[in-house]
Amino acid sequence: MIDPQTLLNWPFEPIEHRFGASDTALYALGIGLGSDPMDPSQLRFVTHESPALQAFPTMAVVLARPASFSADPASGIDHRMVVHGEQGLELLRPLPASGTVTGRSQITQLVDKGPGRGAVIYVQTTLENPQGDIIARLWSATFARADGGFGGNPAAPRIPHPIPHPIPDRAPDAIVDLPTFPNAALLYRLNGDLNPLHSDPETARAAGFPRPILHGLCTYGIAARAVLGQFCDHDPARLKRFDLRFSAPVFPGETIAVRMWRNGPEIAFQAQICDRQAKVIDNGLALIA
Amino acid sequence: MIDPQTLLNWPFEPIEHRFGASDTALYALGIGLGSDPMDPSQLRFVTHESPALQAFPTMAVVLARPASFSADPASGIDHRMVVHGEQGLELLRPLPASGTVTGRSQITQLVDKGPGRGAVIYVQTTLENPQGDIIARLWSATFARADGGFGGNPAAPRIPHPIPHPIPDRAPDAIVDLPTFPNAALLYRLNGDLNPLHSDPETARAAGFPRPILHGLCTYGIAARAVLGQFCDHDPARLKRFDLRFSAPVFPGETIAVRMWRNGPEIAFQAQICDRQAKVIDNGLALIA
Repeated sequence: MIDPQTLLNWPFEPIEHRFGASDTALYALGIGLGSDPMDPSQLRFVTHESPALQAFPTMAVVLARPASFSADPASGIDHRMVVHGEQGLELLRPLPASGTVTGRSQITQLVDKGPGRGAVIYVQTTLENPQGDIIARLWSATFARADGGFGGNPAAPRIPHPIPHPIPDRAPDAIVDLPTFPNAALLYRLNGDLNPLHSDPETARAAGFPRPILHGLCTYGIAARAVLGQFCDHDPARLKRFDLRFSAPVFPGETIAVRMWRNGPEIAFQAQICDRQAKVIDNGLALIA
Repeated sequence: MIDPQTLLNWPFEPIEHRFGASDTALYALGIGLGSDPMDPSQLRFVTHESPALQAFPTMAVVLARPASFSADPASGIDHRMVVHGEQGLELLRPLPASGTVTGRSQITQLVDKGPGRGAVIYVQTTLENPQGDIIARLWSATFARADGGFGGNPAAPRIPHPIPHPIPDRAPDAIVDLPTFPNAALLYRLNGDLNPLHSDPETARAAGFPRPILHGLCTYGIAARAVLGQFCDHDPARLKRFDLRFSAPVFPGETIAVRMWRNGPEIAFQAQICDRQAKVIDNGLALIA
């Protein structure tokens, strides 16, 4: 059972994370970059001996990541039933391809959707460079499916891209199909999220899935590839914000169809798995320069 | 131009290599394990939070690997024209899934195939555990395609599995088709071999290849998957020796057909890319317990 005050006072320590070119390349491979090994717009994020290696901007979400609070029994959360609900990222400075960042996290809000309906826990993180400049601000929502009814506030959670929102009532300006490899989750987890929901068939079954699901943050990075390729000429410096809701899990091996509508610097987006008519990303908003 | 004495006295320093579960998982993913994320015989080498993580035995070839002597201009070798010719491995003790090993290498033999025909440089390496026990002995042959005619010994190089050898004049006892992903070389290189021949299209073209080629040692690990799966019930402890010659390059994305003949504890093997009728591995010999 969740105790709200325990979570709101959760003692995150600042985390200093040193990362190198190999880590940056591994992140990019984990979101499927390099699947065309002749494509320079992919290789720039992957071939790390090159002086031109660039960090893919959503790598911010794997840097200085705090240990999972939901995996700690003190959280009162049934960790096996946890999925990632939403993720947001605001990029204030370009992410270096290697270096050190410090992350500071806190739980900022709890939502009680009611017994049997789950709880949502919001975490904010800032990433700073060694000079103390903020590189990025992140927020995420953890959906604890088994932990509703703790007596908390039932206010509707913040959503990444508020509805009603002008996802235009017209065909998308672009649709990009991005296949994933069947080993995608096994590779992505090497960025540090070792939740066995993404690797162990039995854990996945116990959580109600027929097989291990892809990390929400892997799907997140894949959606960002679509936006960066379609509207930013693959230039990582042009992505300023990237927010979305995970509306259904993706299974490794599936092809993610990202549907995008542009309105000036705003890109609204959703994503689907066409084979099974599932909407896997909703309420997507990217801001580009 | 190669100076034989410079190479035979090449100053390899002992290398201490500390590796963790993530490195062990990354090696396994790099040789295509995990491509079926529901297959426990693959997951045991990949899902590294598990207490049962096992090192895939050919990981020995990426541990405590010396810096490439051929990339050092002092070697006199045209590094762009270098390919891996042969590789052997003798396993004396099981490889741990994490730990520290010390590698000691030396160049033991040079073969001069003549002007325009290239040179072959043989390196031997031993891997020791912290107690000083030898875990593995490795040998490899580097084929320097542009460096024949240095006035050296033209004696035929040692071959992994001497010919004539009883590769029986009969159909293989087993043929295993192992697909590779198009990003295989980009992933495999994170084990430490950053030769741009495997990642940079221009470097590959300058070396005479239409696109980057797979690391020979990646093909090597893939061939070992075939033997371990077919004859060792996926038990890494049963592989005692694994020697082969690389007879043609593999391109990432191709399917490698490993043909195996068993004779007691000896498995003779070759491998082909059926699509283009290329023999990519020859003279293969595995010893199994």
